[in-house]
Amino acid sequence: MADLPEFTMTGGPLEVSDRVLRAMARQTMYHYDPLFLELHNDTIDKLKKIFQTKNDLIIMHGEAVLGLEAAAASTIEPGDKCLNLATGPFGKGYGRHVTTFGGELLEIEVPFNESIDPEAVRDMFRAHPDIKVLSVVHSETPAGTLNPIEKLCPIAKEHQAITIVDAVSSVGGMQCLPDEWGVDICIVGPQKCLGAPPGSALVSVSKDAWQKMLGKSEPLRGSVLSMLDFKERLIDNGRFPYTPSVNQVYAVREAAAQLLEEGLEHAFARHRAAALACRAGIKAMGLELWPASEDIMSTCVTAVKMPDGVTDKALRAMMRDKYGVMISGGHGDLIGKLFRIGHMGKMAGVSYVLVALAALEKTLTDLGVKVPAGAGVSAALATA
Amino acid sequence: MADLPEFTMTGGPLEVSDRVLRAMARQTMYHYDPLFLELHNDTIDKLKKIFQTKNDLIIMHGEAVLGLEAAAASTIEPGDKCLNLATGPFGKGYGRHVTTFGGELLEIEVPFNESIDPEAVRDMFRAHPDIKVLSVVHSETPAGTLNPIEKLCPIAKEHQAITIVDAVSSVGGMQCLPDEWGVDICIVGPQKCLGAPPGSALVSVSKDAWQKMLGKSEPLRGSVLSMLDFKERLIDNGRFPYTPSVNQVYAVREAAAQLLEEGLEHAFARHRAAALACRAGIKAMGLELWPASEDIMSTCVTAVKMPDGVTDKALRAMMRDKYGVMISGGHGDLIGKLFRIGHMGKMAGVSYVLVALAALEKTLTDLGVKVPAGAGVSAALATA
Amino acid sequence: MADLPEFTMTGGPLEVSDRVLRAMARQTMYHYDPLFLELHNDTIDKLKKIFQTKNDLIIMHGEAVLGLEAAAASTIEPGDKCLNLATGPFGKGYGRHVTTFGGELLEIEVPFNESIDPEAVRDMFRAHPDIKVLSVVHSETPAGTLNPIEKLCPIAKEHQAITIVDAVSSVGGMQCLPDEWGVDICIVGPQKCLGAPPGSALVSVSKDAWQKMLGKSEPLRGSVLSMLDFKERLIDNGRFPYTPSVNQVYAVREAAAQLLEEGLEHAFARHRAAALACRAGIKAMGLELWPASEDIMSTCVTAVKMPDGVTDKALRAMMRDKYGVMISGGHGDLIGKLFRIGHMGKMAGVSYVLVALAALEKTLTDLGVKVPAGAGVSAALATA
Amino acid sequence: MADLPEFTMTGGPLEVSDRVLRAMARQTMYHYDPLFLELHNDTIDKLKKIFQTKNDLIIMHGEAVLGLEAAAASTIEPGDKCLNLATGPFGKGYGRHVTTFGGELLEIEVPFNESIDPEAVRDMFRAHPDIKVLSVVHSETPAGTLNPIEKLCPIAKEHQAITIVDAVSSVGGMQCLPDEWGVDICIVGPQKCLGAPPGSALVSVSKDAWQKMLGKSEPLRGSVLSMLDFKERLIDNGRFPYTPSVNQVYAVREAAAQLLEEGLEHAFARHRAAALACRAGIKAMGLELWPASEDIMSTCVTAVKMPDGVTDKALRAMMRDKYGVMISGGHGDLIGKLFRIGHMGKMAGVSYVLVALAALEKTLTDLGVKVPAGAGVSAALATA
Repeated sequence: MADLPEFTMTGGPLEVSDRVLRAMARQTMYHYDPLFLELHNDTIDKLKKIFQTKNDLIIMHGEAVLGLEAAAASTIEPGDKCLNLATGPFGKGYGRHVTTFGGELLEIEVPFNESIDPEAVRDMFRAHPDIKVLSVVHSETPAGTLNPIEKLCPIAKEHQAITIVDAVSSVGGMQCLPDEWGVDICIVGPQKCLGAPPGSALVSVSKDAWQKMLGKSEPLRGSVLSMLDFKERLIDNGRFPYTPSVNQVYAVREAAAQLLEEGLEHAFARHRAAALACRAGIKAMGLELWPASEDIMSTCVTAVKMPDGVTDKALRAMMRDKYGVMISGGHGDLIGKLFRIGHMGKMAGVSYVLVALAALEKTLTDLGVKVPAGAGVSAALATA
Repeated sequence: MADLPEFTMTGGPLEVSDRVLRAMARQTMYHYDPLFLELHNDTIDKLKKIFQTKNDLIIMHGEAVLGLEAAAASTIEPGDKCLNLATGPFGKGYGRHVTTFGGELLEIEVPFNESIDPEAVRDMFRAHPDIKVLSVVHSETPAGTLNPIEKLCPIAKEHQAITIVDAVSSVGGMQCLPDEWGVDICIVGPQKCLGAPPGSALVSVSKDAWQKMLGKSEPLRGSVLSMLDFKERLIDNGRFPYTPSVNQVYAVREAAAQLLEEGLEHAFARHRAAALACRAGIKAMGLELWPASEDIMSTCVTAVKMPDGVTDKALRAMMRDKYGVMISGGHGDLIGKLFRIGHMGKMAGVSYVLVALAALEKTLTDLGVKVPAGAGVSAALATA
Repeated sequence: MADLPEFTMTGGPLEVSDRVLRAMARQTMYHYDPLFLELHNDTIDKLKKIFQTKNDLIIMHGEAVLGLEAAAASTIEPGDKCLNLATGPFGKGYGRHVTTFGGELLEIEVPFNESIDPEAVRDMFRAHPDIKVLSVVHSETPAGTLNPIEKLCPIAKEHQAITIVDAVSSVGGMQCLPDEWGVDICIVGPQKCLGAPPGSALVSVSKDAWQKMLGKSEPLRGSVLSMLDFKERLIDNGRFPYTPSVNQVYAVREAAAQLLEEGLEHAFARHRAAALACRAGIKAMGLELWPASEDIMSTCVTAVKMPDGVTDKALRAMMRDKYGVMISGGHGDLIGKLFRIGHMGKMAGVSYVLVALAALEKTLTDLGVKVPAGAGVSAALATA
Repeated sequence: MADLPEFTMTGGPLEVSDRVLRAMARQTMYHYDPLFLELHNDTIDKLKKIFQTKNDLIIMHGEAVLGLEAAAASTIEPGDKCLNLATGPFGKGYGRHVTTFGGELLEIEVPFNESIDPEAVRDMFRAHPDIKVLSVVHSETPAGTLNPIEKLCPIAKEHQAITIVDAVSSVGGMQCLPDEWGVDICIVGPQKCLGAPPGSALVSVSKDAWQKMLGKSEPLRGSVLSMLDFKERLIDNGRFPYTPSVNQVYAVREAAAQLLEEGLEHAFARHRAAALACRAGIKAMGLELWPASEDIMSTCVTAVKMPDGVTDKALRAMMRDKYGVMISGGHGDLIGKLFRIGHMGKMAGVSYVLVALAALEKTLTDLGVKVPAGAGVSAALATA
């Protein structure tokens, strides 16, 4: 067909459901129209259920990076010791925000195919009990790995540090319990496991986090990076800090509704099944998974070492143009080292994984890589 | 997801492209709005290119059956000898229209897994040189078979008979040359290879056919079954016989545009590739194709004998509810004897065929049928 | 804007709501998909509430004319005396169906700006007590008039005649009580007061009507004109007589839902208010309403005598191209004699009427007709 | 109808065209999909034509405020003297960004119903020839006023200052010539005269502005507030600084296409005509326009002094709930002092203005304010 690609299975954005797209096409409303206010509040309620949190939840109207940067900007007091955990390009990159906003950067960095050992964090807090902020990525999309935030955040909370978790690609697709695990600021992107288009940062904020923001010598207000504006203007006074992305809210609401109708457990199982099928297929094709072990793999994306003799560009261009499947390459330092098949949101299904594996087999064969015929799809199917 | 099925691969309607759906959602216009007239005419032009005809083309505003019945109602003079070719439920069923409108029904019937031998038609015309109308189905969707209309219609034209061809599921997906082959009335459904929703009968009409209609003792006018109304009111005078299905026209136009952008040859090749992959997969799974030989198979749908011990209902319900793929069962007399995987329009792709085969393997296995694991998808993939 | 017209206020189709359009853009489903069956049944239920009937209700998949012709084809036994009431182009035209299907046509015709006097019908039944079928238009859209079917149908029922009512443009916009008033076959078009696109004939059928159809010497079956097919195949056996217009059903369902959420009484009042505003505006502009008296005006459309010196073509082209409002001219014999402003469905609102009146004032002024400035909109507004 | 309001005529967002909404509902693509890159570049090209600029143009993926804050964050060096012109809540508010980013704030403030006199700016530059940045709002939406930036910016450029213009609600609806007038950073919101939903900041950046950003002691990089990221990553290297709002880009592209098809001059004239009609109507109703003189009124919105005895809340709630038109109240310090009828983008039409005036007349009358019946709509219509 003329409108290639037929399937988008990247690190995000991915294809979204017909239902979400139609919701997005609802006529634009004034943001203070009572109907929009109702829809906005309903979206907040639905997202809280998906976040499984009783904390406040705000929709910031820019991509997830806005929420991530805002978390640093809103909480870090110049001079604060901040521990950043670097397990991939996204985790590593967060350190920049720490220094931009005046924090003193402490960092634990591991190779980008590994995840964080809680002991290392415990050691760091022992050495620096005055750490004020811990920042960590839950699901490191560029590397296909998962950090054990359920163990990491409690350590920080024991030391009264605020925890900022990049859960951009985890919430909705795998278990994440901010309240139980001590996640103070949990930032999620709609274009990943939630199955909506990009354009918002969905953020839950704990009381401790609000207090940290208010306790700064100069609390951040009057900025798109201010989370406090959402607390003081919107939550407390019903006024948006700025014009919300009305149609994007429609889309997020519909995606949230669809996810809740499915049920979180079912969605998690669906993401897990897709991931298992994908990994089995990749291994059966004789390819190597990028993460150091399957224990630390995220279920939202499968990262695969780039086979010898194949370039990122050739692989992805042929897979898309000839076989109709768009996947992702590496990000930042990982460019050229791996490629990634995303299976999130609508695309977290074994059927889609089969399509991707089939296209991959054909592409690799065309590119001269020996791949056992049918092995990938057969192995994937066997897991279903 | 809550909105199952994820994939619709039936005998029709099937899933259509996002682009066609969005075109359909354009604001409804008055049918004499100059803009609608322009869109309608453009649709006609595009359809002529797809039909590969210089004949007149009309859009009748009801499902394809309206066009089929209208062809009989408009052309058959009471007493006319009409030869109907019965190769499946649709072909067989057409005989009813012949008698309803006063024709004398002659019929060649073959088992519903076979197609028509031109010699049989030649013999019939020799025996009845005064046959006035030949009716035949090109692609018999309920049986997955194809009749050689390129050989059948010329025989009729040698005898000055009018040919009515049910090309509902062929045009757009496989070669069909009305002008060259002598098809006087060619009826197509948008919900098959054209990739649009159901709701129209797209019909090309030759000069011979118009003359036959006008030559009737009481030409049919003032009826939804009248094709002449379209000639005399719309083509000659720019007035619609009745209010057209405005939004359906938008959808047909967009599907036609998409198909022309792709190119007919490419679309035919795509349908052929999907059909070959599907057949290979079915055979590798140890299942039996319904048609007597692969030579007579249509590329729009693959009909498969129902495996012993499996009911149509159980097979299709599980395949849809558990594995997300909606397929068709048998139609009319063929109910319970076969099931069908449709690969037409948007769904005519090897990727979709893989998804269907995978779901089929899983379903059959769940139902206790022994199917070699991965064999279907592997074999299908090997053809690509 | 490039996409003129901005407002479509014709005799139908008219603009529909954003919500209906988005519903129509839902992915096409197989018609035997359990989800579609559920949606279809739900549509039937909703339409029964809108029709205010306990009779069976069927959705025929072609424009309203299909239902009208089908009513005649399904019920009239050759030789049946049929009384047709001709109050406009639509009513007059129905007589043709009577003769086509072998009925003996009796007719009461009045000038096309009047409606039927029940006494005339009573007289006719007295003279011909063996009349089998009465056909009448409720709201005669081309003339903007209303027939008192609440008085006419009971007369027919007293004589055991079957009543066929063209309620195409009345149901949803004004009171119509088929069960109470003795309407055996009530045919409605979605593109009028229901606020959906054209493409279906919505028909309620009474037990008496089914019996009449079954009692024919050759009951009509196996045709798109057969209503019995819907009874025997779909209602009794769950099989569609032919592929339904899936996306059109989505649209009708959404329009029905929207109407029921509003409430019938509210919708009737809205249509009435729009009609009163329009009539007031027209009169204040010094123009003449077409119907002989306001008592017999339909609330769905306002028909206005064409001012001297103005052609239909010039009026409508300028009003659309320069002022953005598309209206209707005359139909059939009424072409050139009147123009019509439709206010049905979504467009049945005083706001829209003001827009149309303003455009009309400007257009007439441009065309050299003296119109008191602002008088139309002021008068219309005064009624609100 | 249930989906009130029927008409949204606020200070923004307003209703957008059906075409824009359908474009937005296109399936979400990966942002590095070649097709998306093509669409994104095409959007940039179209926007440059609308901005009438040869400068670079970037789409920042957050509401217009993001672009406004980013302009300050990216250009202001701590210690820079910055002249901010305060003619309304938006202009006044911009001063906050100046101080946040370390600038020394100089300000010219006038009552919020007046605009800036170029002489005052000239005087200020004479007194402070080392002013580095001038910030000014072109069309002050909360006040309905227009500043003569064509005279103000050249003064700044004579002094080598960088000019930041909030053209959020002007570009697309009225003349704005960044290159000719010396606008270095021109920030536009899609949800105003462009006729798209909110969610982007569209920004043109001159060479002088890039140089100012690069010349800072610590150029801003790696932040959602960084404009340089767009220059260095996207324009120079084809990499998005972060995931763009894919579907929002579709919408902006379609709105831009629609506007260019209409033609800028036509669009400006349409906005002007709507504004003139609205002002005439307001005055005829005996109400008072908010701006001090008609010479300084913006054509995108009409600001009206709140009549005595009427509260903002009562006026707007009744006008929406009972008469179907959503308008805006005051903003910031102007709350309660005025109300505003927006006529931008799709809603910049005399027809819509009539609807709003009619609803206003009814509402005021219901609230006990004496308004001459029909005077507003008549006067508005007379201007058309």
